[in-house]
Amino acid sequence: MTRLSVPEGSLFGLANLPYGVYSIAGGPRRIATRLGDHVVDLGLLLGTEGEDAVFDEPTLNGFMAQGHARWVAVRTRLQEAVAGEVPDDAVHPLAEVALHLPFEVADYVDFYASEHHASNLGRLFRPDNPDPLMPNWKHLPVGYHGRSASVVVSGTDIVRPSGQRKGPQDPAPVFGPSVRLDIEAELGFVVGTGNAMGEPIPVGEAEQHIFGAVLFNDWSARDIQAWEYVPLGPNLGKSFASTVSPWVVPLLALEAARVATPTQEPAVLPYLAMEGGPWGLDIDLEVEWNGEVVSRPPYAAMYWSPAQMLAHLTVNGAPTRTGDLFASGTISGPEKDQRGAFIELTWGGAEPIVVKGEERTFLQDGDEVALLASAPGADGSRIGFGEARGRIVPAS
Amino acid sequence: MTRLSVPEGSLFGLANLPYGVYSIAGGPRRIATRLGDHVVDLGLLLGTEGEDAVFDEPTLNGFMAQGHARWVAVRTRLQEAVAGEVPDDAVHPLAEVALHLPFEVADYVDFYASEHHASNLGRLFRPDNPDPLMPNWKHLPVGYHGRSASVVVSGTDIVRPSGQRKGPQDPAPVFGPSVRLDIEAELGFVVGTGNAMGEPIPVGEAEQHIFGAVLFNDWSARDIQAWEYVPLGPNLGKSFASTVSPWVVPLLALEAARVATPTQEPAVLPYLAMEGGPWGLDIDLEVEWNGEVVSRPPYAAMYWSPAQMLAHLTVNGAPTRTGDLFASGTISGPEKDQRGAFIELTWGGAEPIVVKGEERTFLQDGDEVALLASAPGADGSRIGFGEARGRIVPAS
Repeated sequence: MTRLSVPEGSLFGLANLPYGVYSIAGGPRRIATRLGDHVVDLGLLLGTEGEDAVFDEPTLNGFMAQGHARWVAVRTRLQEAVAGEVPDDAVHPLAEVALHLPFEVADYVDFYASEHHASNLGRLFRPDNPDPLMPNWKHLPVGYHGRSASVVVSGTDIVRPSGQRKGPQDPAPVFGPSVRLDIEAELGFVVGTGNAMGEPIPVGEAEQHIFGAVLFNDWSARDIQAWEYVPLGPNLGKSFASTVSPWVVPLLALEAARVATPTQEPAVLPYLAMEGGPWGLDIDLEVEWNGEVVSRPPYAAMYWSPAQMLAHLTVNGAPTRTGDLFASGTISGPEKDQRGAFIELTWGGAEPIVVKGEERTFLQDGDEVALLASAPGADGSRIGFGEARGRIVPAS
Repeated sequence: MTRLSVPEGSLFGLANLPYGVYSIAGGPRRIATRLGDHVVDLGLLLGTEGEDAVFDEPTLNGFMAQGHARWVAVRTRLQEAVAGEVPDDAVHPLAEVALHLPFEVADYVDFYASEHHASNLGRLFRPDNPDPLMPNWKHLPVGYHGRSASVVVSGTDIVRPSGQRKGPQDPAPVFGPSVRLDIEAELGFVVGTGNAMGEPIPVGEAEQHIFGAVLFNDWSARDIQAWEYVPLGPNLGKSFASTVSPWVVPLLALEAARVATPTQEPAVLPYLAMEGGPWGLDIDLEVEWNGEVVSRPPYAAMYWSPAQMLAHLTVNGAPTRTGDLFASGTISGPEKDQRGAFIELTWGGAEPIVVKGEERTFLQDGDEVALLASAPGADGSRIGFGEARGRIVPAS
């Protein structure tokens, strides 16, 4: 048996205890939590009898499907178990394991919940329009479905996508590797238990359904997107890859991070009115470009809350399932160095920024981007999300 | 043992042999084909040894994942087996079984491949624009991701969705049941074997990947859609439900239906150039509204082929999986009575049509819509797709 210690200042102390999936040397995928710089195998720590059989599965889906009361109970047991003596074979240094996609993604929806991001894009794309926001933007959380199959775990290389692009002056579209490859720094929310068709999830019940949160990089080929997206929205400009962090931070670990959302004016329709709140999340993100922090997007500035997103997503009767992933859209704050996409940071490429001494606009081959985040945890601690990292490799 | 007979004129003769999933009296879901007015259990007919173990599964996914050579081999065995003596317990009258969603849907993408449909909607929504088609329309098959969880099998009631709508003259959006509930008569294509991330499927290889086709009704709440869809495309206006027919007609059964696609002018980029064709499909659809045929959309008029859709979908490196579903978008022909959506048939509701003696524009509670289709089969036969049927029940 081992007694685990958490390094001073670790974002993975007892207040965090996120869930992930690891393997050793090509062995089977197993469920774990992270404490300090170690992974702790849940099946070996808590057993796999009865309801705990889900800890023998290769994804979190089985556990997530067990529902909110079970998430609470397991978290309590886990906090007690890792504070005591732990079986040696349950513990592995983080450096010795591979981390995998923690859950099987059912449907994936991306929202557009930051007023600063939507306003910046409005100014860039529709400079003649007096209001940078579309008329619907303050009435509903605008979102669209994306590709579940291309959600990959942090560390997966991102192949530069090829596709059609056509500048306004070009006589015809051309085909080739994207020349405006960008990121979107987002938070993703994982549905633990869904709703049946025809039974919407009210804002006040969202907490019973949302299992946790991940970092999410919605890689975006702006040139492909700009040409394809009218009138049915983004498709190939986004569908080539999205990167998630390997640890799902339980909503239960984010109690201390909950803050009021910005005032919504005009008032929203009753089905979107906030209940059970506050539902803002005081999570500070960092965007690292080749190791240099180029932006610090504040999640607390987001206009639409995750509870509102889930209520909206289901208000027409659409069902959600265990493993559904809905993401916030780019997180941008009011300041320039809080913008969560390079198209905003460099103003459409017109204002390059200096990264490690080089002028940059969009992503070059070999570039590496990592999203990181931390938030207040219980008892004055801070908790982390790990990272969502990816490196651009040349188009194939 | 039984020798099966096929009624004269049946669309489910030896040239068809579609695949589906049935159950009896709440028993387990099992894989079957349809011959005449009977279902024939594949596991009981062909056995479940070795590779045939997939016939013991509750969906077609396992069989589809075995790949094209296996689809060919099983079809040949199946044609021989049903022509001979068949075990009694493998055969059930269609009227005595329940039919289920035949495959688990992975990602679902809806295209917009009919020039007549896209032109009609352009004229309706942008009457001042000299060209009803968007600039990108003839260069790429425009499409968007939809909700996999709400794909339901024929016969499932459709609850009228509620949501936000706002007419151009309304000061603010209102919430309530959709008042412009519509259909879209489409064909859906089911991916049997997908592609790995970063390895696009060329047009010429689409045939190796596409397992078969289904009828597909993309129910659409036009009022919800009109308010929400800028700039990221349709979401809640579509995500409440889509209906598929219970039988997947193998692409192998559609050889005699293959015809040239319309000439594409301007020429498409090389990755979309047709190969391995022809890839048009001479499938005649019927739209029944409360039992009366109100439209006969011709699939052969579709501008973009399924092979082009799949090649486009993956050209950026996006992966597809067994069970991916991509649909054609509304099928509309050049004539008024060939339009596959009521918004076109009634010109946005301005020109009601008479259905069973009543003037109709959009769907009323209690209305029932069925899509049907047939196509040329081998040896001068015709083959059918069954139906995609749904009845509108009041908003909950």
